[in-house]
Amino acid sequence: MSAEPRTPTAFFPHKHLLGIEGLSPAEIERLLDLANHYADLPKDDTTARALLRGRTVMNVFFEASTRTQTSFELAAKRLGADVTNMSVSTSSIKKGETLLDTAMTLNAMRPDVMVVRHGDSGAVNLLSQKVDGAVINAGDGRHEHPTQALLDALTIRRRLGRLQGLLVAICGDILHSRVARSNIHLLTKMGVRVRVIAPTTLLSSGIERMGVEVFTDMRKGLKDVDIVMMLRLQLERMQGAYVPSIREYFHFFGLDYDKLSLAKPNALIMHPGPMNRGVEIDSEVADDINRSVIREQVEMGVAVRMACLDALTRNLRGGN
Amino acid sequence: MSAEPRTPTAFFPHKHLLGIEGLSPAEIERLLDLANHYADLPKDDTTARALLRGRTVMNVFFEASTRTQTSFELAAKRLGADVTNMSVSTSSIKKGETLLDTAMTLNAMRPDVMVVRHGDSGAVNLLSQKVDGAVINAGDGRHEHPTQALLDALTIRRRLGRLQGLLVAICGDILHSRVARSNIHLLTKMGVRVRVIAPTTLLSSGIERMGVEVFTDMRKGLKDVDIVMMLRLQLERMQGAYVPSIREYFHFFGLDYDKLSLAKPNALIMHPGPMNRGVEIDSEVADDINRSVIREQVEMGVAVRMACLDALTRNLRGGN
Amino acid sequence: MSAEPRTPTAFFPHKHLLGIEGLSPAEIERLLDLANHYADLPKDDTTARALLRGRTVMNVFFEASTRTQTSFELAAKRLGADVTNMSVSTSSIKKGETLLDTAMTLNAMRPDVMVVRHGDSGAVNLLSQKVDGAVINAGDGRHEHPTQALLDALTIRRRLGRLQGLLVAICGDILHSRVARSNIHLLTKMGVRVRVIAPTTLLSSGIERMGVEVFTDMRKGLKDVDIVMMLRLQLERMQGAYVPSIREYFHFFGLDYDKLSLAKPNALIMHPGPMNRGVEIDSEVADDINRSVIREQVEMGVAVRMACLDALTRNLRGGN
Repeated sequence: MSAEPRTPTAFFPHKHLLGIEGLSPAEIERLLDLANHYADLPKDDTTARALLRGRTVMNVFFEASTRTQTSFELAAKRLGADVTNMSVSTSSIKKGETLLDTAMTLNAMRPDVMVVRHGDSGAVNLLSQKVDGAVINAGDGRHEHPTQALLDALTIRRRLGRLQGLLVAICGDILHSRVARSNIHLLTKMGVRVRVIAPTTLLSSGIERMGVEVFTDMRKGLKDVDIVMMLRLQLERMQGAYVPSIREYFHFFGLDYDKLSLAKPNALIMHPGPMNRGVEIDSEVADDINRSVIREQVEMGVAVRMACLDALTRNLRGGN
Repeated sequence: MSAEPRTPTAFFPHKHLLGIEGLSPAEIERLLDLANHYADLPKDDTTARALLRGRTVMNVFFEASTRTQTSFELAAKRLGADVTNMSVSTSSIKKGETLLDTAMTLNAMRPDVMVVRHGDSGAVNLLSQKVDGAVINAGDGRHEHPTQALLDALTIRRRLGRLQGLLVAICGDILHSRVARSNIHLLTKMGVRVRVIAPTTLLSSGIERMGVEVFTDMRKGLKDVDIVMMLRLQLERMQGAYVPSIREYFHFFGLDYDKLSLAKPNALIMHPGPMNRGVEIDSEVADDINRSVIREQVEMGVAVRMACLDALTRNLRGGN
Repeated sequence: MSAEPRTPTAFFPHKHLLGIEGLSPAEIERLLDLANHYADLPKDDTTARALLRGRTVMNVFFEASTRTQTSFELAAKRLGADVTNMSVSTSSIKKGETLLDTAMTLNAMRPDVMVVRHGDSGAVNLLSQKVDGAVINAGDGRHEHPTQALLDALTIRRRLGRLQGLLVAICGDILHSRVARSNIHLLTKMGVRVRVIAPTTLLSSGIERMGVEVFTDMRKGLKDVDIVMMLRLQLERMQGAYVPSIREYFHFFGLDYDKLSLAKPNALIMHPGPMNRGVEIDSEVADDINRSVIREQVEMGVAVRMACLDALTRNLRGGN
C-alpha cells in the first residue's frame, strides 16, 4: 500500500482529468481513439480485465447521480479494478471544510483514482490538489463535465466519421450547464462550429468569448446544423423569474419535428439525459430511430470512462 | 461490448423470467434441480465462479428491499459476474416515462441481466420489452415474485422430498401479495393442492379461478395441511377499512400453536419475511426449531437466484 | 454453501472480534504484527488477494458510517472476498426484534464474516450469538470499537517504535465514546499509562476503575504526555445541560498550540475523525505536518481490518 511515483506519461500528460479546457486537440484525439477501442471490445476481454487488477477506484458523489456513477463503476470493473461507491451528503455541515477532510480521509485509504461529483464549481479541482491519486471530474457545479463531452464527441465521430467542419447547436439551459461548457471547449478545439441557442435569461454572460455563435431563436439557430444537442432544463435550479411556464418554454425552445426540419435533413439528435420529455424535447423526436443517438451516448459513456481510467493509470503501470 | 444474439435454449426456453404463470412444470422442475445443485455447492467452487465472468448483472430496485437485493447480489457474485446495485426513487416524476427512460439508459450500458423490482404490477414486463438483455422480475406490485415461489418450492422439496400431492395453506393478506400469486401458480402446476385463508377484505376477487380452495376461517382452512405458508401483513398498504386492529387480526388470522395444532402433526411453517411478529405469526411458532423453515427459505434464495442467472445466460454462452 | 466447522485457531482463539476487553496482550500483539505486514504490502499482492477468494463479507451498518464501511470494504476486497454493503434503518420498527430477524436472514445467506455497527451498546454481541459466521464489531453504542483502537495502536507503534511505557491523554467526550473505551482497554493492557481529560459532565462514572488517571483540566492532564488523542464531540448526542457553548468548550477543552505546548515537545496528535474543526481541535493543529498522524490512522485502518478478517477466517482455511 506504499505510495508510488506519479509522473504523467506522454500518452496523457496530466495527473487528473478535471476538465476539457486544459486539454490539447491531440490529447482529446488520443482519448477518443482509446475509447473507440474499448467500445468495440467484448466485455470479458481478459487483457482489459487485468489492466487495473489490484487498483482501487473510488466513486465519491457529493451530488447523487445513478447513471453516471453506474457508468464509472462498470468501466472500472470491466478493467478489473476494485470499486467503492460513496454518496456524501453535504447538507448539514460547512462545506469547504468537510470536502477537504473527506477527501483526505479517503485519500488515506490509497485510491488510485477518485471519481468525484460535487455541486460547487471548482470543488473537484480543489480536492485534486490535496490527494495523491488521480482525480476524474464527474461534474462540478456549472463548471465542467469532461467525460460527458468526450462521450458526445465519440458518438458523433462514430456516426459521422469526423468532428472537423461540423456545425453543432447546443440548445436550452446554457447558463446552468457544465455539459454545455465542456462540449463547447471540446468541439471548438476539434474544429467544430458551435452555436448556442437559449432564452436570454438562460445564457451565461460573455458566452461569446468561448468562440460560439449565440442565438435566442431556435428557428434561426437550428438552420443547417449537423447536430442538435439538447440540454436538460434543470427545473430544480430555476427561480420563478427565468421561465414563464413549461408550456411556453416548450413552444419556443423545445425540440419538435417542426423546428428540427430547419436543420440538415439527417441531423443527429443528442441529449445528455435524464430527459424532461415534453419540456425541452418532444417524445417522438427523442425516440426517433434514425436520428436520435441518445442511447449510443450512454453506451459510449462506459467506453470513454474505461479510456480515461486507463489513460490516467498508465504511469502507475510504467506504461506509455 | 457488441450485442450478442439471444435465442432461448432448450434448457429454459424463455428470454426473461417475469413470472411463474408462463412456465411449464418441466421448466420449473429443471430450475429447481439446478438450484438444488447450487445449494450443495461450496461457495468457492471455481467452475461456478467462472460461469458469468465478464457478464454484467444490474440490480434495479424501484422499491427498496435489502434482503432480496443482497440475495441476488451474492448469487451473481458467486457466479463471477460484475454486479451493480441501483435504488431508483420514483416519487417525484411521472412514473411510466421515467421507468422506460431509466430502462433504456441502463440497457445502453449492456447488462446481460437486469434484476428489477417495481411497485406497479406489469412494470417489469413492460420494461423487459424494451431491453436487450434478460430480465428477472424481483417483484412487481401485486403481480408476481417468481424467485420467491421457486425458493419456497425448493425448500419444501428438500424437506419433504416432493411437491406432488401435498396440501398447502397460504394465509393472510392474499389481496396485496405477489408472493401468494406466484406460489399459487407454481404449486398448482406441480400438483400441490392449495388453500388460501384470509379475511374476505384481504381476498382477491376471482381467486378461486386460480385453482385454489378459499377459506375465511383459519381453523377450517388449516385442517390437515402439510405446510402453512404465512404472508406478511403489508401494514403500509392497508386502509383503515380492512383490518379492525392488529390484536384482533392476530386473534383470528395470526398463526399460533393453537391454530397450528389443526394442521398435520409435523406441518412445516413458512414465511417470506420480513415478519411482523405478533401480527401474522406468533414469535415462538416462527422460531420453532423443528417445523419453521424460514431460515432455509432465505438460504435457498441464493441458490435459486444462481440457477435463474445461470439458466437465462446459457444462450450467451452457447450452452444448453 | 454447506456450513463449515469453526474452531478458533491458536493464532487468534476467538470466534468473533467484539471488543478489546476480552483480548490478551499477546493476541493484540499478533493482530498488530499482522496488520503491520499488510500495511507494507502492495495492494495487488496476489497471495493476499487469493486469501478470501470465495468468502463472503457482509457490512451490516445499522448506523451509517461512510468511512468505516469503505475501510472494511476495501480490506475485504484486497483479500479477494465478495463484499456486500447494507445500511439498515431501525427507525420505525421495534429494534431488538428486527435486529435478530435481520441477523438471522443475513446469516442464512452464509456470510463468513459479518461486520456490524449498531447504535445500541451490546447489540453486536447479542447478534454474534445467533449467527454461524464470525462477527466483527464496527462500533456498538458507547461500548467498543475494537478496530479503531487497533489502528490507533498500530499508528503509534509505527511512529514511536513501541507502546510500552508511553503516556497517552484521551481528551473530550469520554462519556459517549466507544473509541475511548476500546483505546483505554488496549493501551492499559499494552503497558501504556492513560489519562482521560474531560469536563465532569462528559466523564463516565467509575472510569477510574479502568486503570486511568482522570483530569478535568487540559493544562494539567496534557503535561508531559507522548500522545494527545482527541475525541469527536458528538454534538448530535448532547443535551443542553452538558456543554454551555461550543466557544466555551473550545476554550477549555479544544486542542490548540497553547495547550499542546504542555505536552512533550514532539507529542503526536490523533483524532478518530470525522473532526469538528474549531470545536474539539484547532484547524492548524489538526493539519500539523510533523505531529498530526490523523491521516496515518485512516491508512492503518485498512491494514488493521485486513488483519482482523485474515485472523478470524484462518480456521475456515485450516490454517493457523
